[in-house]
Amino acid sequence: MIVVMSADRTDDQLNHVVQMVEEMGLTSHVIYGTNRTVVAAVGDKRMVDKGALENLPGVEKIVPILSPYKVASREVKQEKTIVELQPGGAQIGGTGFGVIAGPCSVEDRSQLLEVAHAVKEAGGVGLRGGAFKPRTSPYSFQGLAEKGLEYLAEAREQTGLAVVTEVLTVTHVDLVARYADVLQVGARNMQNFMLLNTVGAQGKPVLLKRGMSATLEEFLLAAEYIINAGSSKVILCERGIRTFEQYCRNTLALSMVPAVKRVSHLPIVVDPTHGTGHAYMVESMSLAAIAGGADGLLIEVHPDPEHAMTDAAQQLDIPHFQQLMIKARRVAEAVDRKI
Amino acid sequence: MIVVMSADRTDDQLNHVVQMVEEMGLTSHVIYGTNRTVVAAVGDKRMVDKGALENLPGVEKIVPILSPYKVASREVKQEKTIVELQPGGAQIGGTGFGVIAGPCSVEDRSQLLEVAHAVKEAGGVGLRGGAFKPRTSPYSFQGLAEKGLEYLAEAREQTGLAVVTEVLTVTHVDLVARYADVLQVGARNMQNFMLLNTVGAQGKPVLLKRGMSATLEEFLLAAEYIINAGSSKVILCERGIRTFEQYCRNTLALSMVPAVKRVSHLPIVVDPTHGTGHAYMVESMSLAAIAGGADGLLIEVHPDPEHAMTDAAQQLDIPHFQQLMIKARRVAEAVDRKI
Amino acid sequence: MIVVMSADRTDDQLNHVVQMVEEMGLTSHVIYGTNRTVVAAVGDKRMVDKGALENLPGVEKIVPILSPYKVASREVKQEKTIVELQPGGAQIGGTGFGVIAGPCSVEDRSQLLEVAHAVKEAGGVGLRGGAFKPRTSPYSFQGLAEKGLEYLAEAREQTGLAVVTEVLTVTHVDLVARYADVLQVGARNMQNFMLLNTVGAQGKPVLLKRGMSATLEEFLLAAEYIINAGSSKVILCERGIRTFEQYCRNTLALSMVPAVKRVSHLPIVVDPTHGTGHAYMVESMSLAAIAGGADGLLIEVHPDPEHAMTDAAQQLDIPHFQQLMIKARRVAEAVDRKI
Amino acid sequence: MIVVMSADRTDDQLNHVVQMVEEMGLTSHVIYGTNRTVVAAVGDKRMVDKGALENLPGVEKIVPILSPYKVASREVKQEKTIVELQPGGAQIGGTGFGVIAGPCSVEDRSQLLEVAHAVKEAGGVGLRGGAFKPRTSPYSFQGLAEKGLEYLAEAREQTGLAVVTEVLTVTHVDLVARYADVLQVGARNMQNFMLLNTVGAQGKPVLLKRGMSATLEEFLLAAEYIINAGSSKVILCERGIRTFEQYCRNTLALSMVPAVKRVSHLPIVVDPTHGTGHAYMVESMSLAAIAGGADGLLIEVHPDPEHAMTDAAQQLDIPHFQQLMIKARRVAEAVDRKI
Repeated sequence: MIVVMSADRTDDQLNHVVQMVEEMGLTSHVIYGTNRTVVAAVGDKRMVDKGALENLPGVEKIVPILSPYKVASREVKQEKTIVELQPGGAQIGGTGFGVIAGPCSVEDRSQLLEVAHAVKEAGGVGLRGGAFKPRTSPYSFQGLAEKGLEYLAEAREQTGLAVVTEVLTVTHVDLVARYADVLQVGARNMQNFMLLNTVGAQGKPVLLKRGMSATLEEFLLAAEYIINAGSSKVILCERGIRTFEQYCRNTLALSMVPAVKRVSHLPIVVDPTHGTGHAYMVESMSLAAIAGGADGLLIEVHPDPEHAMTDAAQQLDIPHFQQLMIKARRVAEAVDRKI
Repeated sequence: MIVVMSADRTDDQLNHVVQMVEEMGLTSHVIYGTNRTVVAAVGDKRMVDKGALENLPGVEKIVPILSPYKVASREVKQEKTIVELQPGGAQIGGTGFGVIAGPCSVEDRSQLLEVAHAVKEAGGVGLRGGAFKPRTSPYSFQGLAEKGLEYLAEAREQTGLAVVTEVLTVTHVDLVARYADVLQVGARNMQNFMLLNTVGAQGKPVLLKRGMSATLEEFLLAAEYIINAGSSKVILCERGIRTFEQYCRNTLALSMVPAVKRVSHLPIVVDPTHGTGHAYMVESMSLAAIAGGADGLLIEVHPDPEHAMTDAAQQLDIPHFQQLMIKARRVAEAVDRKI
Repeated sequence: MIVVMSADRTDDQLNHVVQMVEEMGLTSHVIYGTNRTVVAAVGDKRMVDKGALENLPGVEKIVPILSPYKVASREVKQEKTIVELQPGGAQIGGTGFGVIAGPCSVEDRSQLLEVAHAVKEAGGVGLRGGAFKPRTSPYSFQGLAEKGLEYLAEAREQTGLAVVTEVLTVTHVDLVARYADVLQVGARNMQNFMLLNTVGAQGKPVLLKRGMSATLEEFLLAAEYIINAGSSKVILCERGIRTFEQYCRNTLALSMVPAVKRVSHLPIVVDPTHGTGHAYMVESMSLAAIAGGADGLLIEVHPDPEHAMTDAAQQLDIPHFQQLMIKARRVAEAVDRKI
Repeated sequence: MIVVMSADRTDDQLNHVVQMVEEMGLTSHVIYGTNRTVVAAVGDKRMVDKGALENLPGVEKIVPILSPYKVASREVKQEKTIVELQPGGAQIGGTGFGVIAGPCSVEDRSQLLEVAHAVKEAGGVGLRGGAFKPRTSPYSFQGLAEKGLEYLAEAREQTGLAVVTEVLTVTHVDLVARYADVLQVGARNMQNFMLLNTVGAQGKPVLLKRGMSATLEEFLLAAEYIINAGSSKVILCERGIRTFEQYCRNTLALSMVPAVKRVSHLPIVVDPTHGTGHAYMVESMSLAAIAGGADGLLIEVHPDPEHAMTDAAQQLDIPHFQQLMIKARRVAEAVDRKI
């Protein structure tokens, strides 16, 4: 941490800062510059609240040196984490490229099975589908709950696809973990710290979606909660952020992919469906994500999007999904990945 | 809902849209314009998923007419809601102006009691203080839990101030409700729908903070969850949004105050502490909130901010808080409100 | 400037950084921390391109210490700048509070004169009105040009109000300066550096609007261009920023007011009209700006907003403006300012 | 345009709206819904100021039906526009994929020529390089001006590459057009309407960069200014937007590519250099742009980025650029484009 003193700081103020720094268990180095005096505070106190110094008289600003995340960082673990969706099954984060697809919501048994078989045949490795749905409006369809989980499990039996489904609250974690292969934490829950702890404590892989306005640091700190709670099998998922743009529901921030790869060992997949909110953009952004270095995709597919009970505007129908998979395979090969 | 057809739509496409609209239980009116044909879909199906139509061939876009919220709107209830913080106690939303203040976290008994007495003497009506803390980093102080709630209750006994404290998860609601007068739902939980339902189902008032990137609609729909679950005593709280600005931790969106007053009957308070993230801005933004028409303030005050365990950079010390309250009273009078 | 080396940096990489720092004419201090080595680069080279170091092997990031602006900062000039709108006339930035009001566009002589007299009588000090209009669409009304300037000058003669009007391009500066008392640089031109230079070179005061997505630093650097070009009479104007919010045209960032006052000596006024985009919010945000410490207001007023040729949705009619001014006076008194 | 009346509107208010609509030369259709009355206003008055109606008593909101842009839209011109960078030369917008590369600033003759030859050999079609530089700070290097243009012209002679360079102000248009093949309008000038008009009036192609916070509509309206002024040879360029993200200088909004292709006939290229601000992200985002359907790239390349006078952090060195071009070619082939 670097404490930048203001131009008109007094010696007493400087001494007080030095004293506070040492009170925190850090070593201080004072550097007298041409325009500013700065105090470098050295030591492994990653989590000291820098705010404590920010308001001292004579202090202009505090500059942190270390990233606040640790176990999610490449500093602590150099080699890339590869997550198996099922024990011995398909991997996310290796040289392969994994497509997880399925309907927004599990609506009924035949809808789900139809999609599951289509996903399997087209080369997908995971089946997504919401049994518990987080809905902005209390009047919207809230999901089939356990019945939805049962259908997902049946689809897995028939296809072998790994089941990826969202868990909304701490009290559902055990239930969902009984059926799912991968527990998804949604964007709205990325900073639901109790949920992160509970999800981390059960053994299965976790797919963690980025919050709608989460920074890279907050995203990795959320992963850090899960890892510290017991699960190192975290898959990050970029799903678009909230900006001023209005032609799309969210702005898909694909540069999160190279950014994560630079600082973290965790794999990252991309959700072009929520990341744009419009079916017509999904193919373009899927191919972009592959070429840009993502480790996988999370795509919504529905046999009859017109009649979908949720997110009808953004789900692909099965023929478009099949077409997309053909193109995806070509692009993946061009960047030496295999779908 | 208005369905705007694209310029090159065919008659078959138009007919299909009309048919879908009627399938939804709505009445359709087709208007043939100079450049566009539009289909007006009439009926009280507030929650029809407009996406279902958006992807039909020949459709350019869908324009909703009705706001998605209902019981939180002024349409359903014209008169302003006034929330009593305690039965028969201070009100938020009437002609008075209520200041709720206290430390970011309850750290120990003497810290809390010192602040509580200072808040009471300066004219506050509520005592805030976190017993369970949502922390971005797993390494940060997470709160005193039930012990913190006990101190809050003791402070209430000594001062009469209403206790406002955050509940983080569904499994804590009963516990927190045993001690608190007002349950706070934090910004990170504004779309934790399970929590909204559970909090709404207990009887006490709820202070609902706006999510960091929540729209006005999403904010009111979150209130709608709480109201539908059983509690009509909802106080909204503007606490800043995430933007590109970096001189502040959040951008305080004060225009949310007149916007809420126009469309909703619920009272709205402002949190200038989180809304800026810097103690030096709190006075300015507090006075602005009063003059701008807010119904109250939520302010962090600490007897020794330098040594605060959380959010040290943004808490006021007691003398600054006292000074602020003197100025606040003058501005409140200038807009015919009484602190 | 602080260069933070990555955890796995080599000694050669560190030496190369030290060498580059000294090549830049700076002195280097190396601090060996527990987790990181940092190089503090000391010296008065405010404008060295920090990027040059950012990409060196073994460098994690660069942290600037000094703000990039200088003559606009309080470091260089402690006392507040007070700008006279006309020689010997009303001031912005002192203990008074200045209201500048008028129509969005000058539409015709009688419209302008009617508003001008109303502004004068209500206690305003400046008359705003666009003669050259920057319009998002090429099909919109583009202003009366010189004829509009003539009407403004006539209105000044009749009322004594200072004329504040926008200049769109370098080739118009002389023309506009012949008629106006204060040259306005619009939000879309805040980084039109040629215009900033030309406007700064003529002698009159400049009202500089914040760009729609400008940071505090960029805003002050734009002012710095003007000051360096010759005019120290710069009035800053907060006019709202572009965010994800949709209930307003822009999000009015009132915390820019205390932020500017902390780091700069320049006065700052607030434009609640563009800052919200809706007439119904203007009163609320005007009063908030006064209480929050702004030095003045810029408000759009039109005798017949329904028939305004531009920005009809956000202009106040004269009776609402008069009402606002009565309330404004009360709030100003409550914070010891005088309108 | 649809006028949505508020729930408590009176018949007089409705009649007044109908009258205003007809005064504007539009035909009105009143639809009486279950909860709301709406007035559909029909007719080809694309540019009527909808604000005029927004503030009428009893009006809740106005919903535009037509996009405000026209000649830039696919409605007016179905077939894609293909822009030749030089008469008879390389094309942007056809089945090929065009790479325009070069240094941020033209710094000296040998620097420019070295890059130009490297770009040519690697398969680029255009040479970029700033002679006039828009700089956030008045203390930064402002470009070589006409001398820089001369070097660009010389590089064209030697390599045949088309010269793409920025014009900052109306008074430079003729000068720049004498040397350049394509005039670039920078992000900060996207709404400098005088410049758009002047640039459009000279005959050469224009590369129009998206403003930092421009919406899709504003972007196309800026193109519309240029087209109306006389040049239909407009190449759009996505170069990142300003959001809350801090790991990158801008957030590259790649979904602008499919969005533009849906509504406009103009070609669109992507600038991954400014779009991220970090050299390490350029390769990833370049490949993503190709796969996502862009028509070309604009990339900064410098022979010695460490010593670059501007934007040192984001320029690729020549070997990295060469490597990128090899990968780019493979990805382009996978989506049936040819570099």
